[in-house]
Amino acid sequence: MIPSRVIETKRDGGELGVEELEAFLQAYLEDRVPDYQMAAFLMATYFHGLGRAETDVLVRCMLESGAVLDLGYLDGARVDKHSTGGVGDKVSLVLAPLAAALGMYVPMMSGRGLGHTAGTLDKLEAIPGFRTALRLDEFRAILETVGCAMIGQTDEIAPLDRRLYALRDVTATVPVIPLIAASIMSKKLAEGLTGLLLDVKVGAGAFIQDEGRAVELARTMVSIGDGRGLPTVALLTAMDRPLGRAVGNAVETREAIACLRGEGPADVVELVIEEASEMLLLADAAMEQAVARERAREALSSGAALDRFARLVDAQGGDPRVVEDPSRIALAPERAVVKAVEPGTVEAVDPRVLGMGVVGLGGGRTRMDQEVDLGVGFEVDARPGQRLEPGRPLGTVYARDADGLSRGIRVLREAVRVGRSARPMPLISHRVTARDL
Amino acid sequence: MIPSRVIETKRDGGELGVEELEAFLQAYLEDRVPDYQMAAFLMATYFHGLGRAETDVLVRCMLESGAVLDLGYLDGARVDKHSTGGVGDKVSLVLAPLAAALGMYVPMMSGRGLGHTAGTLDKLEAIPGFRTALRLDEFRAILETVGCAMIGQTDEIAPLDRRLYALRDVTATVPVIPLIAASIMSKKLAEGLTGLLLDVKVGAGAFIQDEGRAVELARTMVSIGDGRGLPTVALLTAMDRPLGRAVGNAVETREAIACLRGEGPADVVELVIEEASEMLLLADAAMEQAVARERAREALSSGAALDRFARLVDAQGGDPRVVEDPSRIALAPERAVVKAVEPGTVEAVDPRVLGMGVVGLGGGRTRMDQEVDLGVGFEVDARPGQRLEPGRPLGTVYARDADGLSRGIRVLREAVRVGRSARPMPLISHRVTARDL
Repeated sequence: MIPSRVIETKRDGGELGVEELEAFLQAYLEDRVPDYQMAAFLMATYFHGLGRAETDVLVRCMLESGAVLDLGYLDGARVDKHSTGGVGDKVSLVLAPLAAALGMYVPMMSGRGLGHTAGTLDKLEAIPGFRTALRLDEFRAILETVGCAMIGQTDEIAPLDRRLYALRDVTATVPVIPLIAASIMSKKLAEGLTGLLLDVKVGAGAFIQDEGRAVELARTMVSIGDGRGLPTVALLTAMDRPLGRAVGNAVETREAIACLRGEGPADVVELVIEEASEMLLLADAAMEQAVARERAREALSSGAALDRFARLVDAQGGDPRVVEDPSRIALAPERAVVKAVEPGTVEAVDPRVLGMGVVGLGGGRTRMDQEVDLGVGFEVDARPGQRLEPGRPLGTVYARDADGLSRGIRVLREAVRVGRSARPMPLISHRVTARDL
Repeated sequence: MIPSRVIETKRDGGELGVEELEAFLQAYLEDRVPDYQMAAFLMATYFHGLGRAETDVLVRCMLESGAVLDLGYLDGARVDKHSTGGVGDKVSLVLAPLAAALGMYVPMMSGRGLGHTAGTLDKLEAIPGFRTALRLDEFRAILETVGCAMIGQTDEIAPLDRRLYALRDVTATVPVIPLIAASIMSKKLAEGLTGLLLDVKVGAGAFIQDEGRAVELARTMVSIGDGRGLPTVALLTAMDRPLGRAVGNAVETREAIACLRGEGPADVVELVIEEASEMLLLADAAMEQAVARERAREALSSGAALDRFARLVDAQGGDPRVVEDPSRIALAPERAVVKAVEPGTVEAVDPRVLGMGVVGLGGGRTRMDQEVDLGVGFEVDARPGQRLEPGRPLGTVYARDADGLSRGIRVLREAVRVGRSARPMPLISHRVTARDL
């Protein structure tokens, strides 16, 4: 394997042999291929992609570069959900305990916020005392007793993916579908699952705005899962507006608890029920979809999911009283309700503007080493298609100080675009399974 | 300037602003932009090229990264020739003393052989005692007294180009026309010239095989020279076969001396006369082309050029007796004449096969740190279009040992392709000046 030849082959649109690509990746992992050669290779994949066989080699090398959880000792299905990331996406906080209440094990490894999208770990840490940095033996013990556990990706999992991701981040080679797919799937395959649900966000607030590319990503990931014996289903879901009302860390955690208490916004609840029923179908292929939906609704409305959430919070060192009293999750002190000034129809609520608005208030990151103010954010009342009259609230801003408050108000006014009509995307537009490949 | 944005802009086919690109290059030079970001940028330029303004910024940053020779104290035109490199191209050894004999100053900085093409420095060092690593003050003194001096690129000249070239070499980003053009022109602009002749080789033995791309390279370089006030002319010359008979270091140096003695192969002599007359026209725009050719022929046939060569060799520490007795330039001891076995017409003499054949005999490099056996090589009798009868010599192999000799024989047989007809390229196919842009 001659590294410059590997780069040249990809540069010229050729397909690399299995052994050649494997040797290249292995050499990179062992520091015999330097970052600059890998960076040139990654840029060549931006233009020519990776074929199916190449993608499989990449996934396998990433997976085998680190530890794979052996959860075979657990008596039951092990199902996880992964979202490609959106604004206001607090589904994991509701879904993990709900799926656990439905009898599945959910070994969930999540990320932190970066850019305009927030991360599950930051939202969990808005709960006083909650620890997301568990040792793997703690993680296993909580998973066994509670049915779900939520941590960050550990250093043991897929180190090749971590190195490649860090390099892609600084070389403008993030938006390459097979690289994205391999990165996500290598981490999920390391969780030792029996089923995987993927939530591929599409729209202005998503990583991918184009529906065709989102479908391609979904198909690539489902195909990778299928090829490695992991039943995988992907849903394409709307990210042309924020999910739910809350955007920011603490406000979203509060909204997640509201969902578990039966008081959540309709879109979040609907997506949670759909995703929980998909996970049930992955756990038990013989179940009928209508039955799965009914069981998911029941576990949410009965308080079983809320109970699991309380046990999860307690097991991971958090204050379980937040379940009864969400005001224990601190919000930033400065608040303002922003009101409509003229009549019209809400044409759009721009999720990217809101997401970057949270970053601007100190509630997100543009680099991974930044501290985050968990208390800032927005609660958005305006929804696409809604009729507005002057004085009607568009939403609430939560900021750390007066200066942030005035910035937040400008952000909210910019995000809510008023016009004549709206054409929101359907909440769930596609469902991709191995049979669709 | 955010490096990943610069990469992204180029990745997406955008044009970078002058200040943005300048800041990016400056940061690279100061190690604030790492090699991996530059490698991703270079690969993006492979796909999207560089615009004229971007190329100018690159040339300027390369040039300003190092020293520029101030040769204004010399009383006369300062003209150099640069070839993009071919097989059997010993023109510089004849042309530099010829141009000096014609009254020009020729401050020639050359390279070493790499891959299938040889380099002027290696050929000069085949002369016993010849030193190519002169200090700049020695270089200046020889240039002033002899009229020409020949050295390697010093560390002071265009360090940014040297760093970028080393990176391109290992990241499959060498064949990018604006990068090639900027690399060549930054070094030539540093020589403090009043005129520059470019010999752009095209064909199987050249860096560029495609005529259209060769013309594009020629136009880009002429445009760069013109933009910086350096009158520049480019000739596109044939490299579908070796130039002259000799391929290898010592054999080529002997052939160059034969040319200076009026005994050179017709194609080398013709190209030398054309290039010398172009240099004369660059030195004196008022001269007529026919007059320039006549003066060049006269300086070659009178022995004036040979005399300059002897003075150059002497000044640079070499044995000037090689001029009278070229056998003082040692050839490898094992020799074999290869003969035709069947009748036919020479369809082609593959220069790349011969060039790589020299490398295989130890006479060239695949990496810059390799030692070179200057005595090995080929003298090729077969020319495209020539009729062959069995027993007619195809050429002679010079090798270090019996094993090399048998390898060399196979190479020569492979290089000479016998068939029914031949369509050799014209020796000079295009002439590009600033008026053609």
